[in-house]
Amino acid sequence: MNETKFVPPEGAFTRTVPIRFSHCDPAGIVYFPHYFDMFNGLVEDWYTEQLGVNYAKLILGDRHGFPYVHIETDFKLPSRMGERLDLTLLLARVGRSSLSVVIVGHVGGVERLRARLVTAMTSLETHSSVELPQVLRQKFETYIRRTQQA
Amino acid sequence: MNETKFVPPEGAFTRTVPIRFSHCDPAGIVYFPHYFDMFNGLVEDWYTEQLGVNYAKLILGDRHGFPYVHIETDFKLPSRMGERLDLTLLLARVGRSSLSVVIVGHVGGVERLRARLVTAMTSLETHSSVELPQVLRQKFETYIRRTQQA
Amino acid sequence: MNETKFVPPEGAFTRTVPIRFSHCDPAGIVYFPHYFDMFNGLVEDWYTEQLGVNYAKLILGDRHGFPYVHIETDFKLPSRMGERLDLTLLLARVGRSSLSVVIVGHVGGVERLRARLVTAMTSLETHSSVELPQVLRQKFETYIRRTQQA
Amino acid sequence: MNETKFVPPEGAFTRTVPIRFSHCDPAGIVYFPHYFDMFNGLVEDWYTEQLGVNYAKLILGDRHGFPYVHIETDFKLPSRMGERLDLTLLLARVGRSSLSVVIVGHVGGVERLRARLVTAMTSLETHSSVELPQVLRQKFETYIRRTQQA
Repeated sequence: MNETKFVPPEGAFTRTVPIRFSHCDPAGIVYFPHYFDMFNGLVEDWYTEQLGVNYAKLILGDRHGFPYVHIETDFKLPSRMGERLDLTLLLARVGRSSLSVVIVGHVGGVERLRARLVTAMTSLETHSSVELPQVLRQKFETYIRRTQQA
Repeated sequence: MNETKFVPPEGAFTRTVPIRFSHCDPAGIVYFPHYFDMFNGLVEDWYTEQLGVNYAKLILGDRHGFPYVHIETDFKLPSRMGERLDLTLLLARVGRSSLSVVIVGHVGGVERLRARLVTAMTSLETHSSVELPQVLRQKFETYIRRTQQA
Repeated sequence: MNETKFVPPEGAFTRTVPIRFSHCDPAGIVYFPHYFDMFNGLVEDWYTEQLGVNYAKLILGDRHGFPYVHIETDFKLPSRMGERLDLTLLLARVGRSSLSVVIVGHVGGVERLRARLVTAMTSLETHSSVELPQVLRQKFETYIRRTQQA
Repeated sequence: MNETKFVPPEGAFTRTVPIRFSHCDPAGIVYFPHYFDMFNGLVEDWYTEQLGVNYAKLILGDRHGFPYVHIETDFKLPSRMGERLDLTLLLARVGRSSLSVVIVGHVGGVERLRARLVTAMTSLETHSSVELPQVLRQKFETYIRRTQQA
């Protein structure tokens, strides 16, 4: 398999996940559903730490949900206990009520996996999609501009 | 959202997963990484119960792995604690060392989610892909014919 | 290590958990937090299938919680992928708002693990403990009598 | 319920776990099996960061396992999404092949939970317990002295 190089664009949000014993299966590599849990944690941290949005308040206080409507992932190289996986979040598209996120997992400049996740903002009361509030939309657009490579 | 009807083809492998308290998040619906764990369990049961292949032996004895190389999922409708989600496994394609599986989650004849998963057979010693053994390939092809709708 | 024999008392609630690839760690044995998830599933099934109580309705409808306040577990023998672990639920004690449950994991008449779990019934509105409703208490006491060994 | 105050002894190993959406259940509090996963992560980090022992190498390289043989936990107060749970590791006892660890979960100087975990060092080849190597034993004893409150 050919390696795919990956250098995060400047200003992109990256967090490192230590690959733990508990992530790994009897084959010694990360059991793949754990990656999706890591993605969710990354998105949560991105809201809180990068955008300055209190994700817990958004859900528990404002009663909004962010269910995923579509997920696509390419698993390119496995990861093992003791490694440190860098996860970088990029924004692909901001819709009326949806957000397309790209998450790249990489170690030492080489892609391990790449996911595209589409999430929709919903009301936890009605369970229908709601329009993204202007303040969120602006933060998303600012992040897109920030991370766009020249 | 328009409902998508789903009737499993005759002969298709279906298992029912009771949606538990532990599957659900503070929004009261299944936390999505659990679906991927359910998919893996379904594939395991399909090998053992449908194909008559000892999945544990295949991995621990023969030292083969079946890592996922690509996954695509559409989440159409959420599922809640106390519901019973039917998961049906269909085969889309048998490659040299890869297998394309379609998993449809449905309740009462309505699709809740649909996933396409591509898995590759590897050696746990060399971690490279290996050709599917003839006996497995034949079982896969028999299952495709069985479940092909006229 | 000396083996401890275990024969479930007649009338006791037992469910079998197939040990899956996903339960196991790089050492090839069940990663221990999964046992606690299995315990929770067993309790849920016991309410629903044995006591005839709709556990989902109890939580989502009546807004009751059953948090664990104390857990003690002896892990005696490991379990591996492909095995089938029998889990038997016994009741040790019914308190004013609490319930002491014993769960024994066994394979082929030999104990693999034994846990004692104390759970308290709470209101999800006030988060304080509430007295067990009479109808539940009676079902618990009936189960104790049923499973008491002569 | 009376609050129990907790101040970690000087020199004790503490790591903070952000309580995530994914940790919480439909009752809005941490689903208890996740605590055990957090404990395992804490022990792993303690080996690596505090003791300077490469935990991954100990398991994958030297083929040692550290299965838990006994766990006792008191859950005193629930934790919720958005909180930050401090976990402090203390050593209670070093045996021939076993280690008794106490983990206290606390927020703002108040105990949330307290666990005692006994782990045994085993060989992954023979699955029997092995004597703790002298170098590990010394590190454990140094840590006990360091964290002993006057």
